[in-house]
Amino acid sequence: MMMMMMATMRKKSPGFLFVYSRIFHSHQPLNLHHNNSLLRSGTSFCTPISRYFGSIRECRKAFQASAINHFKVPSGFRFRCITSLSSVVQRNPSFSRLNSDDIEFFRSILGEKNVVQDEDRLLDANTDWLRKYRGSSKLLLQPRSTEEVSQILKYCNSRDLPVVPQGGNTGLVGGSVPVFDEVIINLRLMNDIVSFDKVSGILVCEAGGILENLSSFLDNQGFIMPLDLGAKGSCQIGGNVSTNAGGLRLVRYGSLHGSVLGLEVVLADGRVLDMLGTLRKDNTGYDLKHLFIGSEGTLGIITKISILTPPKLPAINVAFLGCKDYSSCQKLLVDAKRKLGEILSAFEFLDNMSMDLVLNHLEGIRNPLPPTMHNFYVLLETTGTDESYDKEKLEAFLLRSMEGGLVSDGVLAQDINQISSFWQIREGIPEALMKAGAVYKYDLSLPVEKMYDLVEEMRTRLGNSAKVIGYGHLGDGFCTN
Amino acid sequence: MMMMMMATMRKKSPGFLFVYSRIFHSHQPLNLHHNNSLLRSGTSFCTPISRYFGSIRECRKAFQASAINHFKVPSGFRFRCITSLSSVVQRNPSFSRLNSDDIEFFRSILGEKNVVQDEDRLLDANTDWLRKYRGSSKLLLQPRSTEEVSQILKYCNSRDLPVVPQGGNTGLVGGSVPVFDEVIINLRLMNDIVSFDKVSGILVCEAGGILENLSSFLDNQGFIMPLDLGAKGSCQIGGNVSTNAGGLRLVRYGSLHGSVLGLEVVLADGRVLDMLGTLRKDNTGYDLKHLFIGSEGTLGIITKISILTPPKLPAINVAFLGCKDYSSCQKLLVDAKRKLGEILSAFEFLDNMSMDLVLNHLEGIRNPLPPTMHNFYVLLETTGTDESYDKEKLEAFLLRSMEGGLVSDGVLAQDINQISSFWQIREGIPEALMKAGAVYKYDLSLPVEKMYDLVEEMRTRLGNSAKVIGYGHLGDGFCTN
Repeated sequence: MMMMMMATMRKKSPGFLFVYSRIFHSHQPLNLHHNNSLLRSGTSFCTPISRYFGSIRECRKAFQASAINHFKVPSGFRFRCITSLSSVVQRNPSFSRLNSDDIEFFRSILGEKNVVQDEDRLLDANTDWLRKYRGSSKLLLQPRSTEEVSQILKYCNSRDLPVVPQGGNTGLVGGSVPVFDEVIINLRLMNDIVSFDKVSGILVCEAGGILENLSSFLDNQGFIMPLDLGAKGSCQIGGNVSTNAGGLRLVRYGSLHGSVLGLEVVLADGRVLDMLGTLRKDNTGYDLKHLFIGSEGTLGIITKISILTPPKLPAINVAFLGCKDYSSCQKLLVDAKRKLGEILSAFEFLDNMSMDLVLNHLEGIRNPLPPTMHNFYVLLETTGTDESYDKEKLEAFLLRSMEGGLVSDGVLAQDINQISSFWQIREGIPEALMKAGAVYKYDLSLPVEKMYDLVEEMRTRLGNSAKVIGYGHLGDGFCTN
Repeated sequence: MMMMMMATMRKKSPGFLFVYSRIFHSHQPLNLHHNNSLLRSGTSFCTPISRYFGSIRECRKAFQASAINHFKVPSGFRFRCITSLSSVVQRNPSFSRLNSDDIEFFRSILGEKNVVQDEDRLLDANTDWLRKYRGSSKLLLQPRSTEEVSQILKYCNSRDLPVVPQGGNTGLVGGSVPVFDEVIINLRLMNDIVSFDKVSGILVCEAGGILENLSSFLDNQGFIMPLDLGAKGSCQIGGNVSTNAGGLRLVRYGSLHGSVLGLEVVLADGRVLDMLGTLRKDNTGYDLKHLFIGSEGTLGIITKISILTPPKLPAINVAFLGCKDYSSCQKLLVDAKRKLGEILSAFEFLDNMSMDLVLNHLEGIRNPLPPTMHNFYVLLETTGTDESYDKEKLEAFLLRSMEGGLVSDGVLAQDINQISSFWQIREGIPEALMKAGAVYKYDLSLPVEKMYDLVEEMRTRLGNSAKVIGYGHLGDGFCTN
């Protein structure tokens, strides 16, 4: 679920930003990566996720000093705390500074135009999509091949130059931009499709391929990508895999740990690890590729990906529903999984403040359920092989749900334009937020039944100083605790 | 695919057994685990998979000396070679021998009855299911809790006593029995269900739970396990996860890397690694649990598992089909994935020699497609929310496939008894093989289109000296190379 807080908070704590990238329950040690031999052996990777893992005490302390100091951290929870405040995070003095010999070396392997020092282009690459984090890198490198990535990393490692891998730079937690002066390695030029097998649906491609381009390519072959994100027009598959992106299709096709069949990765010292298998089941040796899925570039730079893509199914139906409370949304999801089982492909929810925001800030969007305003909205999508039957099944399900009181009102898209307009509401929230003001965005996984309590609690505590909205993929994160 | 060779080979090369546990294409180093810090730091785990990884030259050499010396290893392929021949594998002299103090210690923590030295019980635990491998362990330990597993391992590590973790001992490649005198740690007493959440379908259980018992438990709750195996009556979930078992539902629910949400593991030195998350998407830190999925106990003993279970869908349809050639089976699979997409839940194939074997060696089995014998058979299962519609869809698909010539003949099960009898044919093959004689079993993943060539090639090369059969989950392993 996404929870957003806008408006005045930034003014209250200039330059002090918190990102809970996950609140979690387990006793998993927070400093696991410090024990990792790669990081100990002199790698100079540096991405925000590895910059600062505070102890819970340090995080609490810093947290209490911030504007949102009334929010109590639930007992037993641990969290990461990442901040851009330079008094907390110091540049590691053992890292070198770039010099003209370095530039010369990079030019010799990449050619002049892929060694970027232009101020404007660097400003873009130093700034994240939400314009919340800004680094001060003086160098952007654009390798065209695995070999070039390898040469860059080998050199940086030998020179102790810090680096940050960058894909489409669409992340919302500052993971793709430098904190200080790290060398930015952007993979955008590595966007070739290596192979596609129409029998198995296995796509092998370079990491810089833009998700939407890969989807278009597959569409012509009768397949789809197993993940879909609002940022698909810019985000790159390498970044998706590095951040273990979930997105809109997780409820149907599961996580990337299931879909990704193989990876090619360049380690910090330039060694290339070829784990580019294309077997759906491969028990050969240790399955190391999973370490790179979700580790955000801290262990190596993903350069190629082999991924299982599902067949494109012709029948898509989308319903847009109003629910009176959060509990009804949850119950509806459980029912939908049981009754629509094999055809359920998305279950997204948003609260009425998210709807207001989209209606007020984006052009051409209308609420499909006027004139009543509901407290919550659900977008439910089915995908199957037979449109008429799927629709019939969905209609029967919706009828029962309305009779049972879980759904207060709803509409079923009649054509592709209506499908697209329903999706625009959900996918438009991040853009509407950007237009509405300064945004604090928290991407949380909590027990679903408790998740919305957090939004309500934050509203109570923040009062008029900020607006708090909640929306997201309700099917993603369940927890039994 | 399983390929079996029976009869005379054993006589030709007594005591010399080869298991290709996987032939693969990647350049993944074969000795990765030797670089693993756990193994270097004095662990005394010892399971067959880590006992002997030959270089390709050594394997080829040994292979050429064996009875099946005409089988050419495809160029560029690498393979593992495991042998029980004591002249090749030597007991590591740095491992200690059990003494009476050890026994006393184990009794003090496990109680007398869970420290097993009884010869008959040890014989069972020393022998694998196919009766092909036999160890000479003098001690079987049956811990009842994670804490006891931890104490055992801590002690064995400090004493340099080798251990082998054992679940249901139903594996077919000798991974669950000792090679020499390793202490056997069997998890059968750790079979509690820790929790089950009916909203999310997330089951948390101990590793010793028998797959069928877990399935029965879930059945009452309206859910199913995401994997199913012929050995379900004996195999344990911990062993399934440790070996990354695929099984009959992989085509529908994917691999355990997607379904397993968390693990609790005891490392070689007794430390307990708690990675028992229950979130469907969890990007907190490195996702270390994947290292334990499929690493066969070489990195630690899995003690608890959190797994996402799918809702039980009411409508199951099973068709049993005859095909004229292997190519038709493949094309049928591609069609089935596209046309039956969301309801396809199993696609199994067997050749006519597998069918003969089952008909000749098992009681009460009959060929549903008499009197013609087909060259290949396919068992196709659909699972969905609506029986009549699914059946209608399946019938239409089968009609088209027969008109197109992919299917020569077929029957659709009319009731649960017929469904069960069709499945008995496929699931009965391993048992029929056991009754037919000595068996050499090879579990291979190869490009599907080339897989059956191997069976035919082996038949040609072996002539009358052995029967070679091929059967398996056709949906499992696709390869583009």
